[in-house]
Amino acid sequence: MDEVLLKQALEFGQPYAQKGKVASYIPELGKVDGQELGICVKTIAGETLHSGFWKQRFTIQSISKVINLVVALEYQGFEAVFRRTKMEPTGSSFNAMSHLSDSEAIPFNPFVNAGAIAIVGLLVPLGLEQMLSAVQGLCSDKYITINEDVFQSEWANCARNRSLVYLLQSKGLITEAVDDTLRLYTQLCSLNVTAESLSNLGRLLANDGIQPETGNRILKEEVVRTTLTMMLTCGMYNGSGEFAVRVGLPSKSGVGGGILSVVPGEMGIGVYGPSLDSKGNSMAGQRVLEYISRTEKLHILDRYAR
Amino acid sequence: MDEVLLKQALEFGQPYAQKGKVASYIPELGKVDGQELGICVKTIAGETLHSGFWKQRFTIQSISKVINLVVALEYQGFEAVFRRTKMEPTGSSFNAMSHLSDSEAIPFNPFVNAGAIAIVGLLVPLGLEQMLSAVQGLCSDKYITINEDVFQSEWANCARNRSLVYLLQSKGLITEAVDDTLRLYTQLCSLNVTAESLSNLGRLLANDGIQPETGNRILKEEVVRTTLTMMLTCGMYNGSGEFAVRVGLPSKSGVGGGILSVVPGEMGIGVYGPSLDSKGNSMAGQRVLEYISRTEKLHILDRYAR
Amino acid sequence: MDEVLLKQALEFGQPYAQKGKVASYIPELGKVDGQELGICVKTIAGETLHSGFWKQRFTIQSISKVINLVVALEYQGFEAVFRRTKMEPTGSSFNAMSHLSDSEAIPFNPFVNAGAIAIVGLLVPLGLEQMLSAVQGLCSDKYITINEDVFQSEWANCARNRSLVYLLQSKGLITEAVDDTLRLYTQLCSLNVTAESLSNLGRLLANDGIQPETGNRILKEEVVRTTLTMMLTCGMYNGSGEFAVRVGLPSKSGVGGGILSVVPGEMGIGVYGPSLDSKGNSMAGQRVLEYISRTEKLHILDRYAR
Amino acid sequence: MDEVLLKQALEFGQPYAQKGKVASYIPELGKVDGQELGICVKTIAGETLHSGFWKQRFTIQSISKVINLVVALEYQGFEAVFRRTKMEPTGSSFNAMSHLSDSEAIPFNPFVNAGAIAIVGLLVPLGLEQMLSAVQGLCSDKYITINEDVFQSEWANCARNRSLVYLLQSKGLITEAVDDTLRLYTQLCSLNVTAESLSNLGRLLANDGIQPETGNRILKEEVVRTTLTMMLTCGMYNGSGEFAVRVGLPSKSGVGGGILSVVPGEMGIGVYGPSLDSKGNSMAGQRVLEYISRTEKLHILDRYAR
Repeated sequence: MDEVLLKQALEFGQPYAQKGKVASYIPELGKVDGQELGICVKTIAGETLHSGFWKQRFTIQSISKVINLVVALEYQGFEAVFRRTKMEPTGSSFNAMSHLSDSEAIPFNPFVNAGAIAIVGLLVPLGLEQMLSAVQGLCSDKYITINEDVFQSEWANCARNRSLVYLLQSKGLITEAVDDTLRLYTQLCSLNVTAESLSNLGRLLANDGIQPETGNRILKEEVVRTTLTMMLTCGMYNGSGEFAVRVGLPSKSGVGGGILSVVPGEMGIGVYGPSLDSKGNSMAGQRVLEYISRTEKLHILDRYAR
Repeated sequence: MDEVLLKQALEFGQPYAQKGKVASYIPELGKVDGQELGICVKTIAGETLHSGFWKQRFTIQSISKVINLVVALEYQGFEAVFRRTKMEPTGSSFNAMSHLSDSEAIPFNPFVNAGAIAIVGLLVPLGLEQMLSAVQGLCSDKYITINEDVFQSEWANCARNRSLVYLLQSKGLITEAVDDTLRLYTQLCSLNVTAESLSNLGRLLANDGIQPETGNRILKEEVVRTTLTMMLTCGMYNGSGEFAVRVGLPSKSGVGGGILSVVPGEMGIGVYGPSLDSKGNSMAGQRVLEYISRTEKLHILDRYAR
Repeated sequence: MDEVLLKQALEFGQPYAQKGKVASYIPELGKVDGQELGICVKTIAGETLHSGFWKQRFTIQSISKVINLVVALEYQGFEAVFRRTKMEPTGSSFNAMSHLSDSEAIPFNPFVNAGAIAIVGLLVPLGLEQMLSAVQGLCSDKYITINEDVFQSEWANCARNRSLVYLLQSKGLITEAVDDTLRLYTQLCSLNVTAESLSNLGRLLANDGIQPETGNRILKEEVVRTTLTMMLTCGMYNGSGEFAVRVGLPSKSGVGGGILSVVPGEMGIGVYGPSLDSKGNSMAGQRVLEYISRTEKLHILDRYAR
Repeated sequence: MDEVLLKQALEFGQPYAQKGKVASYIPELGKVDGQELGICVKTIAGETLHSGFWKQRFTIQSISKVINLVVALEYQGFEAVFRRTKMEPTGSSFNAMSHLSDSEAIPFNPFVNAGAIAIVGLLVPLGLEQMLSAVQGLCSDKYITINEDVFQSEWANCARNRSLVYLLQSKGLITEAVDDTLRLYTQLCSLNVTAESLSNLGRLLANDGIQPETGNRILKEEVVRTTLTMMLTCGMYNGSGEFAVRVGLPSKSGVGGGILSVVPGEMGIGVYGPSLDSKGNSMAGQRVLEYISRTEKLHILDRYAR
């Protein structure tokens, strides 16, 4: 892989940006330029490749669900996490509540809002500062901060998520203070990252939880395996199944336009393209990743033949 | 891997058989012995390993959905197949119809009944004889025949599937004769296979569609990749997500008690254990596979580290 | 009440016809003129009032569900009928199946398709000829016959209803032959009636089941009470609640454009206006009835004050 | 009607109390004696009839939804109320949220929790004191106060209702302060009434909104008609349809064990029997009302024949 390929991939993906729309349910999110597109790749071997808007800051949104999951698994363990959410993909949209109406039901997985919020509850004792420092560490990017404008805009429009939190509380799936949980969840959605930050996180996951530069193990093997599997089956909202067929890389998207992708054993990839399809995934970003996966034969089920 | 490991795996899984129940919705299925347990492994290199009831015939049931998918993809192509079904996993049970009530909706994936039946429609022109011969070839088992008792029992109890077929017809997702479609679907569920037959099919998929003994390509690469991905995200009914985390091998279960598992690039595995959990997956069989995957580090996301 | 009032009511309702659409899901139904509007009133005292297209034949469609219910209650009894369907109104549309996906569930009421078909099963032993003669008697209209064009058109487009029948069969809610049940159901939907036929049926129900002209009891009191109650709570599809508030007369609509209304103790009303709202109720017809009910204070909860 | 009949009705109903259970989802509600049963009837003519525990105080619970509706209709008007809720009965349970998951959806009717809470929002400007005084007036019972123990118990267990409020807020169906709305809603559920209080309210509705003793009009005709119709179609949770067939009186039940019933033009009835069926309706109370309705021919569709 080289930067020529990345450039070709962006060129391939660019036209699709026009077919989507930037997120608008949060006023502040609607202000970005939907035509921006960028990518950054970090290999375990130490290489950095990039093209386009790879330095552009954008909000992490649902990709924070990956960080929430790994930190919760490290901090509270597998049992505690999966008492609050199942591990099943769902054909429903990310903010669905309908199946939770039954009193027995628990959220489908850690990457739908309901499951993610339940997991953030487990992180409340850590507080924002520790979480921010964890994010900066996992992404090797000490410039990650909260985008205050986006946070305020989301905080002022979070009635549906607040409804979810109380529904979870009524089921005993959240025992932490509601306000603390929801604020932390929303703050973690509002973090300013770049395609490069995501590629650093991806590389760490690709290397099984060991920071390549230092050789230090940051995350347990089981945490990485669980997280990558969930990304593979549930990472792209209700488009996860088709993305797994077409691209075949554990990935997580956010409505800020980011996609985090992992090529296990090889590299992390961060993509930024804020024009979204109807499911909330970056329109052009998905095509960029499909181009690269096809060209380089990175599909997780193709790689044994090499 | 050796037969000692397989024996240990069966010993590990055996106690779980008591916690499940054999399928009973079809009278004939209720007659088997729930305590039987067997496994067969075929490596690409040519080795055969087995233990327990590996020669016991049982009906293939939903594992036929894998065969239907590969034959339909080969015979009618990607476009034709995925016009009739999406590729998305679903948290709902295999015979769910509720989401299809909306007039626009199409089945979630080829492994829920609705999707599988829509795909069998595409195979009607081939007819049973050609399909049977295809199955025998894919499984390298010329003794596979229809279990007439099971077929008659299923045929006499297929009102719900018949309801599904007409619902699909009302949406234009089936254009073939209803009776022909439903009969072929039911016949293909009633095929008598063994753990060995499944392991042969698994080995073919593990080897990217090339028959190891002859070097002949039987299935296109894209067909294999698509099928294995669907098995990974949707193969174990509404327990697919957790199975992907715990075992991490593209697999497909059937209520006859079989599980087909694939270790890409290495081997095919067939398991037989007819005592089922509430989702319809072999109770002991899942544990046997978990034991092997953990011991041998076969999880699809563990293997890059080796 | 007099014909001047009826004329005013039609004038009041007429403009609403333009806001609706004639049914189109069955090609043959799409051929009628949506601007037609007519009404016929028959009082227990023996008066006949009419205006507009009161002699125009149209297909009875869902209003046959009222006839199916009364005949089934007379012929098979309360227990037999309400073993196959509940008596609960539902906020869902008439052809909903989603709630039936659960294996325990039975249809909500006799006026949704699922419930009506289950009830027609009970009528299969009577056969079409006896049912036709029953309809002619109940409606005092010996010219009621099957509209063959509509029947053929519906029969050729009944896959969704056929799906429903098999779903009911899978639940043991239909034990009669599927084809016989569905054909009889569809034939009874295709009967050619007029606003006058409906007003005759309405008068019989208004008079507690006694034919006013002869003094003969045709229907048991309990049958009439049950049927009128169901019409009040469930007769106008998922617009029944609002219609009960605004008009307050036990009524049943059909997508052929008819509405049967009953003023208990006083009169029967038949309306014809084939332009429908999104729920399947006659757009203008509802307004005509609202006008009359308001003007004459016929709302079932207003009449005690008089 | 006389007190002998009421006594017979209680005797008929009493055994059914053993088949139900007192509400337990709120700890404080679980403390009552499920075998208590009482009734009070007030006729427009001025008679009072009673039997059993007619003086026992209990919490009004969902019957407050009737009061909320009439006050909101008087105070804010038909348009304002029915912008926040539809008028449609639903086959779902009183605390269902699933259908609200769709962004367009509004609550089915004023008697499911979601609809009732949306309506209480309209009453927030009035405040508790004015509402309490309104309740005392409508029920002719100046001893009605908040049961503080029940209120505190409900307030400590209202996460699911709080979830509903925020869901409504996210749809713009509540613009009032969430806490104020939810507190007022819960306070109004916790009012201590008797069968007599309910019979007074019933008599007022039976008399078309005019207080019989004074001749003063308290409620507009349209408000009474709308409210009684909603009670007829939606008043008994998801048992409303069957209750309408069997009893046929506009009624509203509460999980405190009360039922308010109205015989239009004649009388109001209050029943108390805290042992509930699975839908939340008084087990014995329903039977008491069925006995009286059958014996006295009070069914709303029977009364024209008299």
